[in-house]
Amino acid sequence: MNKPKVGIINVSGYTGVELARLLSQHPEVALTSVTGRSSAGKKLGEVFPHLADLALTIEPELGEVSFAFSAMPHKESAKEVIPLLSRGIKVVDLSADFRLKDAAEYPAWYGFTHPEPQLLSQAVYGLPELYRREIAAAQLVANPGCYPTGAILALAPAVKAGIIEPEIIIDSKSGASGAGRTLSLPTHFAEANEDASAYALDGHRHLAEITQELRLFRPQLPAAVTFVPHLIPMTRGILTTGYAHLASGRIASGSRGSGEVFQLYQDFYRDEPFVRVVAHPPHTKHTWGANTCFIHPTLDLRTGRLIVISAIDNLVKGAAGQAVQNMNLMLGLHEPTGLGAAAIYP
Amino acid sequence: MNKPKVGIINVSGYTGVELARLLSQHPEVALTSVTGRSSAGKKLGEVFPHLADLALTIEPELGEVSFAFSAMPHKESAKEVIPLLSRGIKVVDLSADFRLKDAAEYPAWYGFTHPEPQLLSQAVYGLPELYRREIAAAQLVANPGCYPTGAILALAPAVKAGIIEPEIIIDSKSGASGAGRTLSLPTHFAEANEDASAYALDGHRHLAEITQELRLFRPQLPAAVTFVPHLIPMTRGILTTGYAHLASGRIASGSRGSGEVFQLYQDFYRDEPFVRVVAHPPHTKHTWGANTCFIHPTLDLRTGRLIVISAIDNLVKGAAGQAVQNMNLMLGLHEPTGLGAAAIYP
Amino acid sequence: MNKPKVGIINVSGYTGVELARLLSQHPEVALTSVTGRSSAGKKLGEVFPHLADLALTIEPELGEVSFAFSAMPHKESAKEVIPLLSRGIKVVDLSADFRLKDAAEYPAWYGFTHPEPQLLSQAVYGLPELYRREIAAAQLVANPGCYPTGAILALAPAVKAGIIEPEIIIDSKSGASGAGRTLSLPTHFAEANEDASAYALDGHRHLAEITQELRLFRPQLPAAVTFVPHLIPMTRGILTTGYAHLASGRIASGSRGSGEVFQLYQDFYRDEPFVRVVAHPPHTKHTWGANTCFIHPTLDLRTGRLIVISAIDNLVKGAAGQAVQNMNLMLGLHEPTGLGAAAIYP
Amino acid sequence: MNKPKVGIINVSGYTGVELARLLSQHPEVALTSVTGRSSAGKKLGEVFPHLADLALTIEPELGEVSFAFSAMPHKESAKEVIPLLSRGIKVVDLSADFRLKDAAEYPAWYGFTHPEPQLLSQAVYGLPELYRREIAAAQLVANPGCYPTGAILALAPAVKAGIIEPEIIIDSKSGASGAGRTLSLPTHFAEANEDASAYALDGHRHLAEITQELRLFRPQLPAAVTFVPHLIPMTRGILTTGYAHLASGRIASGSRGSGEVFQLYQDFYRDEPFVRVVAHPPHTKHTWGANTCFIHPTLDLRTGRLIVISAIDNLVKGAAGQAVQNMNLMLGLHEPTGLGAAAIYP
Repeated sequence: MNKPKVGIINVSGYTGVELARLLSQHPEVALTSVTGRSSAGKKLGEVFPHLADLALTIEPELGEVSFAFSAMPHKESAKEVIPLLSRGIKVVDLSADFRLKDAAEYPAWYGFTHPEPQLLSQAVYGLPELYRREIAAAQLVANPGCYPTGAILALAPAVKAGIIEPEIIIDSKSGASGAGRTLSLPTHFAEANEDASAYALDGHRHLAEITQELRLFRPQLPAAVTFVPHLIPMTRGILTTGYAHLASGRIASGSRGSGEVFQLYQDFYRDEPFVRVVAHPPHTKHTWGANTCFIHPTLDLRTGRLIVISAIDNLVKGAAGQAVQNMNLMLGLHEPTGLGAAAIYP
Repeated sequence: MNKPKVGIINVSGYTGVELARLLSQHPEVALTSVTGRSSAGKKLGEVFPHLADLALTIEPELGEVSFAFSAMPHKESAKEVIPLLSRGIKVVDLSADFRLKDAAEYPAWYGFTHPEPQLLSQAVYGLPELYRREIAAAQLVANPGCYPTGAILALAPAVKAGIIEPEIIIDSKSGASGAGRTLSLPTHFAEANEDASAYALDGHRHLAEITQELRLFRPQLPAAVTFVPHLIPMTRGILTTGYAHLASGRIASGSRGSGEVFQLYQDFYRDEPFVRVVAHPPHTKHTWGANTCFIHPTLDLRTGRLIVISAIDNLVKGAAGQAVQNMNLMLGLHEPTGLGAAAIYP
Repeated sequence: MNKPKVGIINVSGYTGVELARLLSQHPEVALTSVTGRSSAGKKLGEVFPHLADLALTIEPELGEVSFAFSAMPHKESAKEVIPLLSRGIKVVDLSADFRLKDAAEYPAWYGFTHPEPQLLSQAVYGLPELYRREIAAAQLVANPGCYPTGAILALAPAVKAGIIEPEIIIDSKSGASGAGRTLSLPTHFAEANEDASAYALDGHRHLAEITQELRLFRPQLPAAVTFVPHLIPMTRGILTTGYAHLASGRIASGSRGSGEVFQLYQDFYRDEPFVRVVAHPPHTKHTWGANTCFIHPTLDLRTGRLIVISAIDNLVKGAAGQAVQNMNLMLGLHEPTGLGAAAIYP
Repeated sequence: MNKPKVGIINVSGYTGVELARLLSQHPEVALTSVTGRSSAGKKLGEVFPHLADLALTIEPELGEVSFAFSAMPHKESAKEVIPLLSRGIKVVDLSADFRLKDAAEYPAWYGFTHPEPQLLSQAVYGLPELYRREIAAAQLVANPGCYPTGAILALAPAVKAGIIEPEIIIDSKSGASGAGRTLSLPTHFAEANEDASAYALDGHRHLAEITQELRLFRPQLPAAVTFVPHLIPMTRGILTTGYAHLASGRIASGSRGSGEVFQLYQDFYRDEPFVRVVAHPPHTKHTWGANTCFIHPTLDLRTGRLIVISAIDNLVKGAAGQAVQNMNLMLGLHEPTGLGAAAIYP
């Protein structure tokens, strides 16, 4: 009984190497091929000593696999993925190249014209909590961005149930690994340490995903989401705080309303293996290295606002872990396979 | 020509020791007395080696001074301050004990009945950018909280000008020194490092100050401020992101509106020595150790919202530096005296 | 086929909770009982949300188990362990209470008289790389300290082979979790962050273990080990740098000597599942959450000194991981069972 | 009475910008010109917002000054400095280009042939605690490296007094700002955070300086200094731990010897404005932003070794602060002028 062979395109960034870590522990698939450009020819363990037990050599081109992950940057990823699809290979693309349904969004947000717009409707947005069935049937899954994962999971129950006004504010705080392994001044240690700052105030690319997904629940949702990402001095983790006014007449006032909201969230995520609705504000630390998303919904009783907070590890549930979760669904495996490890605390 | 003698009650916490640092460099006053309980009898330099040059011994009681800072915790601070006032000593109180005008707020927010409610109307809220003249004439100044300093400075121009709806969301990110030198699990290194979390979702005490001050500009402002503080893994710094919808018809739409808002903020803070309205999102790092507050107002053109970000050092402009600024005003000194040092970067 | 039931005494410190994490993933044993004092009665997931999947309640007393880990502090641990032994339960004690062979060392280093000195000769020092066979046969294993693990593994090959003079300097740098979950000023975030310091210059307790073990290879080794631990601002990890002069005539001079030393270390650790002799200075980051110890031996050609560097995760190979490794040996399981997870990087 | 005009060549690195900060607060000189390559033409406050009050524009070439600091990288610095000298300008060079007395060392350690070897004997090594008189008379001062400053100050009293054997081990732990503002993988936030590692095991360039200076006290000192630098996750600070065996018969044994060593260090640094011999192991945190060097000498009574620990801020006493201290001496100013600010704690 042969395990499916899987490969990673561009193992040398943080999402790529995190995929390699998770797949190395996966009991039902075999990671047999990893590619990289600058590091092609090296052993994986030379570049990443923690993965030395994986006796893999970084290759210039993907070997024979039946399942592939692309951890290439946007625009380049589509070029790698399209040929694989025509060879019948199933793919989870961790870039943004197949996340947006409307091809016109690509020039606006990403500065390029999509090479195969017709694929956008075939690709499934890889948030299993929303699209489990579609993912299981897909050949191509577009793995969500790290911020959208935390934001959509935090807000979907409220938006779907129509309990909030469509005026939503999303304030996210991310560790520096979200910016990748490519060097930059803002992620230079002496700059990022002991610092907090906001960025992309004129519109972060992930806003396109967030709006697209939330609108599916309420097509009339106007362009009323404000999303401000912040860089804070930690390596992993995204904490997202969402704010929205309660729609009138849907939720009881006072603390009874808090209970109703909590119940609504619990019901929404009742059988989810990786989402936990919790009674206290969550800590990103409790997700470190794990595929968990903690969500804490509550009401600001003074103002009648919903405050909802989510915590994820940006490289796991926000990237590589969710990609493996999608792979499990696409291969018909038990969804949590290989993703059972608890977070590492402290 | 004798310099005024000043003293610090409770030098052994972070705001107290930061006051000692700033006063040690102040050319127009002499720090002659510092008190502390557990450390009474020790030389200041034993407890705080960086201040060994200050040849002071920590005393159980304040010595003969004409100006005093109280860095005691709330409730206890009032007890220390009230006797000083009757002896004619000018006081900056860094606790919350004289910040709120309405005595009824103390039981609600701080759990005690105010011992001398009539003093609340005499005390001046020590935000020089709003109350410079009153501070100069006051005997008792209530130094603002760290979060309120960043939040009020960020929002006052917009609220006063009436350009925003009174529905305001304030999302603050603070370093751990804001929680003080008293040990606690959330500020234990292994817990706070590599972690981000929200707290006090049912209402942080500083909300009372923020609401009180913003309402002075718009008495009709309903209780519509949501304030969520977050703890992030750094020692110093508060980054505050404020969100509010533009009031209709006050500001031009589009990028022209952004320019108008920027101009409004620049005008508001034109001659302020410690506030800088900047064209880019500020970094708390650029305030490290300095009394500066950076403010960046901008419009989210997609939603018509004001986003305004402020950055301060919570122990300087958010506490000890602002207290010295207030002292300068109360003593008739040039306001920036002793506060000219640039931030330490990186 | 029932899995052995195992328990943890004092799950509420960092070594205890790390044991719970590792045992929760162990396929061959069942963690059925965890104790704690202040938190008795609470669900484990209330105190440690990352372990909520473990449906365990913290108990005041250990339940029915056939294998126990004690994560109690020294002196108190012996009191818990001794009764278990008489009931035939196998025990790994993570405290220092059975590490030292000479009972006279306890008053000197730990300030108490050992309650059952005769057990000291029965207890096995739980460093599998040195005592694998004895551990497999033991009822009581004394799990090594975190510093000794890194230091002894780094120096054992050189000491045993007699290639160095017995004048050894060990300079260790530890993350703050090594000091435990108990609050203290040196591990208060604002104190420990952006700080480095040495401590215990008059003799850290772990020196007793280090000397005891290194002397077993060379009984004539005089008391010539200097060990200085340092606290640095990270959560996990110990980097140990050892220095010793080469004994004359044992190793070739120049870079040929470097090769010989490297070979000697490789041979010493050839079949070890958790020790990797590497050609570059190791990073603690590459051990984060894993039971790996990286060792890099090299020669300072200018001075004829051996420099050897080891990196471990203080809570895994330096505590809980090694304890599970010992348990595997004591239960006749495959040694790496449950410890195969790669480090989490970055 | 005109203040001397001073300039900074290459203000855009961390030592350059720290010079600008310190000079902006200096009451006796006027910083009138700063240069930079990539940032030429920009206002200083655009690149470094904390220095916006300094109304300076970054220039391609140095303006008219009577005193210059070069913060260029090695090899390039000499090219900038040599023409200034012939114009009679006094210079503190913060690079390594004039630190080594023996021109033959440059090809060996820095990979280039020195362009003007005869200047090496004229340049004074800018450690005021050792060369105060020579610095005051010099036109060209070579500012010491950051590691050598901490290491030489820690060891000079013992080496000069001949109380230790010439077998010295120096283990240093540095924050990431020591590696500069130039991007590199080891100083990428996600790599450096939560990590400790040693580097340059085959000989760090600063060893040449350390050995040169220590030998001046004991010309017979063989090449017996081992120096291992470590990178730890903080922005500023170097903690250096030095180890050496006591020479026989010079110091009493036991704790009396500790007292003698402490006294010897106190005498050596008695009137030094920036060196403090302290009775407890120092913390780098207590030097943050200040020109202080703390030194703690003690004996390891078990082994008869001297352990001496020094703490500095690598960018102040280890670079820019020491450079200003040298400038003060060269200009006949009071040595601590402009350097009186206490460290910023916490």
